[in-house]
Amino acid sequence: MHEPQSLEQLVAEFSSLPGIGAKTARRLAYHILTRSKEQVNRFAERLVSASEKVHPCPRCRLYTDEELCPICRTRSCAKAICVVEKSSDVQPFERSGIFKGLYFVLGGVLSPLDGVGPEQLHLNELVARVRDENIEELILALGSSPEAESTALLIGRLLESLPVKCTRLARGIPMGSDLEFVDEVTMLRAFESRGAL
Amino acid sequence: MHEPQSLEQLVAEFSSLPGIGAKTARRLAYHILTRSKEQVNRFAERLVSASEKVHPCPRCRLYTDEELCPICRTRSCAKAICVVEKSSDVQPFERSGIFKGLYFVLGGVLSPLDGVGPEQLHLNELVARVRDENIEELILALGSSPEAESTALLIGRLLESLPVKCTRLARGIPMGSDLEFVDEVTMLRAFESRGAL
Repeated sequence: MHEPQSLEQLVAEFSSLPGIGAKTARRLAYHILTRSKEQVNRFAERLVSASEKVHPCPRCRLYTDEELCPICRTRSCAKAICVVEKSSDVQPFERSGIFKGLYFVLGGVLSPLDGVGPEQLHLNELVARVRDENIEELILALGSSPEAESTALLIGRLLESLPVKCTRLARGIPMGSDLEFVDEVTMLRAFESRGAL
Repeated sequence: MHEPQSLEQLVAEFSSLPGIGAKTARRLAYHILTRSKEQVNRFAERLVSASEKVHPCPRCRLYTDEELCPICRTRSCAKAICVVEKSSDVQPFERSGIFKGLYFVLGGVLSPLDGVGPEQLHLNELVARVRDENIEELILALGSSPEAESTALLIGRLLESLPVKCTRLARGIPMGSDLEFVDEVTMLRAFESRGAL
């Protein structure tokens, strides 16, 4: 092949990103060559910096680069926790501004075929928080897949003995879509019509 | 905003890449956080490495990380030069294997509106090569846009006094498509039926 190895290696890196095919990866790698060394260095530094500094908040597991995430720090008196699958699912809530409570990132939903059982989901931490912080409402925002449904049912069972009301987002959320990309209006509707588990 | 600054900065870097929108950039940045530090460091190193090592070949301006690109090094006796707009346009030729000659990367096509005039296109280097290397055929592979047409005509005029035959790829190449992504069969047809300028 006539192409330099360092270029091929960069193409391979871009190809390994989710949703980036071979042609897009090649286009991105060639684009990088047209940039100044300063720009490329900054990109590289930001990759490393994000990877080194960002970690799950020890309380809610949201991504943060501080000791405690800003939400846990500023809303410590809140009595509601919204449970999401992954850190980026918090965005539509915070963008719409309808929820002023706390969050908890499960890190996934039950999926026996992928080897995700209850012990992978930080459920003990969630139950401990609900108990220790006297949480009054737990809002399950886990999407509409069968896996999410069974995860929600399991959480409901685990919390049966505690004085917490479990709700979940209304069915206004379109089936099969990724929670991360729900628009604000749909999120407002789904949030307002949340019902008992 | 609840998101850590270093994550936002990484989103901004991905957003600045061509064809990567805001949502894709966010998805890629979150994906990076799920990777091991070793993987991210390797990505960062390969970005910097490609940017530092890869440079235009001093003879044909193809991207290379050696003193002279492999094509100029191994085909120095060839008497044909294929002129392309950008380095990645060489791929369909090399993939189809039909051309065993040399290349020259113009670095663009004439585009007065974008401020690209003859002096931006390394035309003097091209003319000097054709003269000094006794090139017998110059194959213009510049696409089918009006800008590419006028660039081809200008090159033909510049070489009028030299004993070189100017040809261009046949019209088999679909209009409006990017030369970089032409399939092998189309490239073979277009190459075989190349005609006088």
